[in-house]
Amino acid sequence: MATTPIQHQYDPDFCHCYGCGRMNEHGLQLKSYWLGEEAVARFTPKDEHMALPGFVYGGLLASLVDCHGVGTAAAVAAAEKGGCRDEPLGRYVTAALQVTFRKPTPLGPELVLRGRLKERRKSKLVIGVEIEAEGEVTVRGEVVAAPMPASMG
Amino acid sequence: MATTPIQHQYDPDFCHCYGCGRMNEHGLQLKSYWLGEEAVARFTPKDEHMALPGFVYGGLLASLVDCHGVGTAAAVAAAEKGGCRDEPLGRYVTAALQVTFRKPTPLGPELVLRGRLKERRKSKLVIGVEIEAEGEVTVRGEVVAAPMPASMG
Repeated sequence: MATTPIQHQYDPDFCHCYGCGRMNEHGLQLKSYWLGEEAVARFTPKDEHMALPGFVYGGLLASLVDCHGVGTAAAVAAAEKGGCRDEPLGRYVTAALQVTFRKPTPLGPELVLRGRLKERRKSKLVIGVEIEAEGEVTVRGEVVAAPMPASMG
Repeated sequence: MATTPIQHQYDPDFCHCYGCGRMNEHGLQLKSYWLGEEAVARFTPKDEHMALPGFVYGGLLASLVDCHGVGTAAAVAAAEKGGCRDEPLGRYVTAALQVTFRKPTPLGPELVLRGRLKERRKSKLVIGVEIEAEGEVTVRGEVVAAPMPASMG
């Protein structure tokens, strides 16, 4: 189940996202894997993804939280339906994003993201995301993920 | 006062940010201008800054909120000191970021960002940021900006 990235299970029409679309050649191409209880992704920022020398840019970290959060939501929803693999995952979009930078995130090491369902609000899923650098959680985020409205499809 | 972007008044050592650093050739190079009561920036996303076809990527919008927010904080702090132009602006960093996507932001039109001081929390400044597309506010954000800690300098 963990061998195909969540984002590669989206409908091809929805695989152009700058943060995680496999068809966006200029983008970050984040890949998240559903492990049954949580989704995990690994990402190594590039040199230019800098805030101040030596530290990762907060906007990049927010982007990772965003894409990992909606990916986790899609995987949670699919798992609840029995994890059918023969149709694309239902796509979620971000209604709200909250990111707390607990400490500066060092630029260089691979980052590990973990996402989990925290709460439900009607059709919305609230996903908690943590980013870890060198074994330490530097960022905590929360994504309110909503099923993609028909007007965006 | 509005003719030099806020970000160009940072110390050159702190002008490498992916979102707004004038010395980051791969970055977004956001430029914010202080107009006395609020800071304004204009930014036109590129084609690849897509979430779903036709709509701007939320991570990019969060990045713009982030850099415009800390820029506004730096300008607010400088204005309170009398707006001295002969030394670099004190650099702020993001302690927390909150973004609400009120409606999808169309990809194509120039976006207008407005930032204003909302609140003070000791040395931190809370900046409210709005993003407007085609005359409509599509994104509301809040940045908790903290003076850059010495450990990051």
